[in-house]
Amino acid sequence: MLSLILAESSLELVPFAIQSHPSIMSHADKLGKHPSKILLDNSWHFAGMKGIENEIKRGRPDLVHFSILEATSIPLYYENKLKFFIHTTNDKVISFTENVHIPKSYHRFAGLFEKLFLEKAIKSSNQELLSIKDQSFSQLIDELGPSQVIGLSTAGKQNSFQHVAANLDNDSCIIVGGFQKGHFSDSVSKRIDHLFSINSAPLESHVVVARMLHECEKTIFM
Amino acid sequence: MLSLILAESSLELVPFAIQSHPSIMSHADKLGKHPSKILLDNSWHFAGMKGIENEIKRGRPDLVHFSILEATSIPLYYENKLKFFIHTTNDKVISFTENVHIPKSYHRFAGLFEKLFLEKAIKSSNQELLSIKDQSFSQLIDELGPSQVIGLSTAGKQNSFQHVAANLDNDSCIIVGGFQKGHFSDSVSKRIDHLFSINSAPLESHVVVARMLHECEKTIFM
Repeated sequence: MLSLILAESSLELVPFAIQSHPSIMSHADKLGKHPSKILLDNSWHFAGMKGIENEIKRGRPDLVHFSILEATSIPLYYENKLKFFIHTTNDKVISFTENVHIPKSYHRFAGLFEKLFLEKAIKSSNQELLSIKDQSFSQLIDELGPSQVIGLSTAGKQNSFQHVAANLDNDSCIIVGGFQKGHFSDSVSKRIDHLFSINSAPLESHVVVARMLHECEKTIFM
Repeated sequence: MLSLILAESSLELVPFAIQSHPSIMSHADKLGKHPSKILLDNSWHFAGMKGIENEIKRGRPDLVHFSILEATSIPLYYENKLKFFIHTTNDKVISFTENVHIPKSYHRFAGLFEKLFLEKAIKSSNQELLSIKDQSFSQLIDELGPSQVIGLSTAGKQNSFQHVAANLDNDSCIIVGGFQKGHFSDSVSKRIDHLFSINSAPLESHVVVARMLHECEKTIFM
């Protein structure tokens, strides 16, 4: 089956080292939660995040939320023709089972994913809807065993969404960056078989996800 | 120029009649704002919204946020080849000037649009970025004077995004519903020249906006 991985996604709980920073304490207080139980969010925690490792790729749960919705609100996903995974900057992998409806309201999305990070799975009537485990990008690729790994990045060879989609087979795996700025790290790049640039200027992740999956859907459903 | 109107959008401040409802008072209190100065949001104000007029099409600023981002994060918009408008359920029209960057973080989006509703315009260095005025859908169409008005709805004649885009001319106006459920009201429907259905099952507004504009971009930039 076709799969999509949002790689190095900006999604995590506030790390221990900065939980006592005033910007984070006051936001957690506002939410009525312990700092260890809230998503790291640059729009609230900017001051506390200054200088943390890999800062540029962290603390943008809003961007990840949009990409998740673009991938899970479409026929390709709800007709079970797409496997979707979030790989995070600190090597966790979130799996979405079939037909999961992710909240569109941001505070509900945040609450759900905070619960997922803390409890490792979200279940409904004993069915696992979402699960998270420690896994590197490379381990996830080994587990999936795709026929080819196609990465999308401005650093790649010029191409178009349409042409990339037309050359996929059923077991291809598409990689889109789940971060705001920068390029794939070496540990992701080394597992990508073909890297394509589908626009001269950088596009937001959610735009890339929406366009790429629409073209795949057209090819698959035709 | 090509234009897109998100019609009957679920975006408004909390109306006077329900400002004293406990669900709204407590949420406003949490935000540290007066109930008259916050966006109506079904995910917080569900109890207070029960039974209000046109309930089904109101209180989903999250959906409108996604559609705005899909329309304003793309080359078609930032290369000034698209005019974009939000028409709301209670006949206000929001205009986006060229190259406006809308916040992706929900609380920043909400803050910005609350300010817009209260102050009628958002300016930066004396340039007006966003403005809002009282205007019906029909009045907006009269003002734009498009060559044709194309509506997208499951109630329309079967078609595809690609085919709809291929048959647009430069002064066409595309209409997508900015609400969660239901169909265009009569006052919108009567101004639509051609109504097309581009998927057998309903699609989320943000998915329709993303796909439609991508196909337009392919046609226009080719």
